[in-house]
Amino acid sequence: MCQLLGMSCAQPTDFTFSFTGFAARGGHTDHHADGFGVAFFENKACRVFIDNQPSCQSPVAELIKNYPIKSRNVIAHIRKATQGDIQLENCHPFMRELWGRHWIFAHNGDLLNYRPKLDGHYQPVGGTDSEQAFCYIMQGLRARFGNREPSSSELFTAVEALTQEISRHGVFNFLFSNGRMLFAHCSTQLYYLVRAWPFATAHLVDADMTVDFSQTTCQDDRVAVIATRPITDNENWVSFGPGQLTMFERGQAILHAVVPIPKAVQKTNAANLNCV
Amino acid sequence: MCQLLGMSCAQPTDFTFSFTGFAARGGHTDHHADGFGVAFFENKACRVFIDNQPSCQSPVAELIKNYPIKSRNVIAHIRKATQGDIQLENCHPFMRELWGRHWIFAHNGDLLNYRPKLDGHYQPVGGTDSEQAFCYIMQGLRARFGNREPSSSELFTAVEALTQEISRHGVFNFLFSNGRMLFAHCSTQLYYLVRAWPFATAHLVDADMTVDFSQTTCQDDRVAVIATRPITDNENWVSFGPGQLTMFERGQAILHAVVPIPKAVQKTNAANLNCV
Repeated sequence: MCQLLGMSCAQPTDFTFSFTGFAARGGHTDHHADGFGVAFFENKACRVFIDNQPSCQSPVAELIKNYPIKSRNVIAHIRKATQGDIQLENCHPFMRELWGRHWIFAHNGDLLNYRPKLDGHYQPVGGTDSEQAFCYIMQGLRARFGNREPSSSELFTAVEALTQEISRHGVFNFLFSNGRMLFAHCSTQLYYLVRAWPFATAHLVDADMTVDFSQTTCQDDRVAVIATRPITDNENWVSFGPGQLTMFERGQAILHAVVPIPKAVQKTNAANLNCV
Repeated sequence: MCQLLGMSCAQPTDFTFSFTGFAARGGHTDHHADGFGVAFFENKACRVFIDNQPSCQSPVAELIKNYPIKSRNVIAHIRKATQGDIQLENCHPFMRELWGRHWIFAHNGDLLNYRPKLDGHYQPVGGTDSEQAFCYIMQGLRARFGNREPSSSELFTAVEALTQEISRHGVFNFLFSNGRMLFAHCSTQLYYLVRAWPFATAHLVDADMTVDFSQTTCQDDRVAVIATRPITDNENWVSFGPGQLTMFERGQAILHAVVPIPKAVQKTNAANLNCV
């Protein structure tokens, strides 16, 4: 399948350290070599970098490792194709607009025979189950709220209901953000940690690199990192439970819910646990 | 104002030569230093690179100059802000989705007191007149055709009518593409050329660089380049007439129309001729 990496921050923060470890999994320390993508929100703007080369050797990945873009919400994805060809239009994250905001989505999993009814407001450009699910979520938000942007808690309830509908179809680990909130859902495997004052050092799993965050941060900083597998080996990563949906805002986990997963899907998901 | 550069090609073609000259105008050979952007279509996928640093010194621009992305349709823009702050969300090109295709838009000009009625299907993320115009075009296409993707000629007629509506409000030079067709409209200043077999050498205006295209092309190649000001000094650039709308497909100018411009707007446009 694929791997996900997300970041939600109190202050605009650069992603170069985390991405250096994550990018190595795209063909160097792991086999997710069928393309990658990273979306950076900078206020309301969003930059999406995608490439169909493995992230361990792509010039676009080199740029991202060396250009300290400062962002409050980041979503990254390295791909091991399950559905859809190895083409650029199938690289996550995907982007659409609603209520004058960009929305970003990346998925790790496999939705079987998933053909949601799409009314045309949002249509997939590529051939993945993931982009179909994203379009269905965007359509569902528009159908519920029309042109009125909902509150955070209304949005959370809507995302929870839509996640329940979609996760009946299979493994549906995802990251989803509008540049203010970042939603993380776990079907099978997802971890997170929150770095806050007083900061310490962190050492990557996938590269011999250590950063002492106490040298570059202040008391107001707070960073939540969400990953399919922990990207550092000396920090306390917390495992999401099956069905857990969490909304992060400015580096804090604000709202939680557990989305029920039907038993038949639980069995398939358990079989897929080691397939990330 | 700003400058535009577009490319429509029969075969996927790299943009590094053209972009090297164009990027120099973003703060080196010219004053368009308030950000830049380039969108590359690769089949149905579209990569948009934007930066709020001047293109003559941005690391993102360096990547684009050195990474030969092969594309049939490219739209690039360097910005000199007239409306909207110097922020990333105001950098062109803008992107939206319709009929399962990405659509890209970049504008050079100034639309005065332009507040189109937007029904919510497409809303601007930033604060520019340009993104308002783009959303209005997208809304107009959706309103005319619903979920049915029109033929090329139907699309051309629709874009012509929408251009006429918007160009009443001021200077409206633009490039617009869905990855198959590329539309170019001129209010005040726009040039194009078509390179075809037998190819020759081209020398940049803004950098001492020459390419001999006969060494890297074949008989089937054909490239149309569209620019606010010619980017080479030894080729035959053709000037668009005021109001000229042209649709390019695979390196050929396929359809033309002249969109009438009201006299009052013509006078303002004439005064703006040297402001690009």
